[in-house]
Amino acid sequence: MSPGSPHVTDNCTSVSEILGRIGDKWSVQVVTSLRDGSRRFSEIRRTIPDVSQRMLTLTLRGLERDGLVSRKVTPTIPPRVDYELTALGHSLQGPVTALAQWAIKNRAQIEAARAVFDTTQT
Amino acid sequence: MSPGSPHVTDNCTSVSEILGRIGDKWSVQVVTSLRDGSRRFSEIRRTIPDVSQRMLTLTLRGLERDGLVSRKVTPTIPPRVDYELTALGHSLQGPVTALAQWAIKNRAQIEAARAVFDTTQT
Repeated sequence: MSPGSPHVTDNCTSVSEILGRIGDKWSVQVVTSLRDGSRRFSEIRRTIPDVSQRMLTLTLRGLERDGLVSRKVTPTIPPRVDYELTALGHSLQGPVTALAQWAIKNRAQIEAARAVFDTTQT
Repeated sequence: MSPGSPHVTDNCTSVSEILGRIGDKWSVQVVTSLRDGSRRFSEIRRTIPDVSQRMLTLTLRGLERDGLVSRKVTPTIPPRVDYELTALGHSLQGPVTALAQWAIKNRAQIEAARAVFDTTQT
């Protein structure tokens, strides 16, 4: 193990796999969407432009499996399904918000870097 | 736009795309690997178990394109290539480290949640 990167290389397979889940762009947006309380599927979907029904279903299922989101089914007709962050999910809010804010703040700079890079590669 | 999630839904396509890059599990580990200074390709690779040569090449290229990592070629024989975080890349350290530390801290809890979930689905 490198002395310079103990955080990530410590039992790395599992951590990198978890990072793959929580750093996923849809997961980040679902966690953000649920930060103020429970929401129904259609409400979550409205807050995330470009997400497909299938991708949102898969993302919610992954977050539920990881114990980050809980799912409550009310047996009305049609059934009502509400999603909510668990305590563990709420604890992820801080890091995820910081990452999203970094992305928003630095978007223009990244786009400019890409434009330069793409010009020099042709 | 939802009033509850202005951070991510504000011009979302681009931000979610950036999140896809910086939240990527390999990107997170490369950024962590470079936090103490420049490193050669083989040195970075040694700090990241399980990364293939091809995946590390693609990840470094993506980070270079985004202006997060700079690449310096010294024309020795064979050429020596060093990678280093740019100022923008260094500014990503804080959020990325927080995310990685969250993953390490909560890994056991996530694994336990998965085991329960997988049992109830069969």
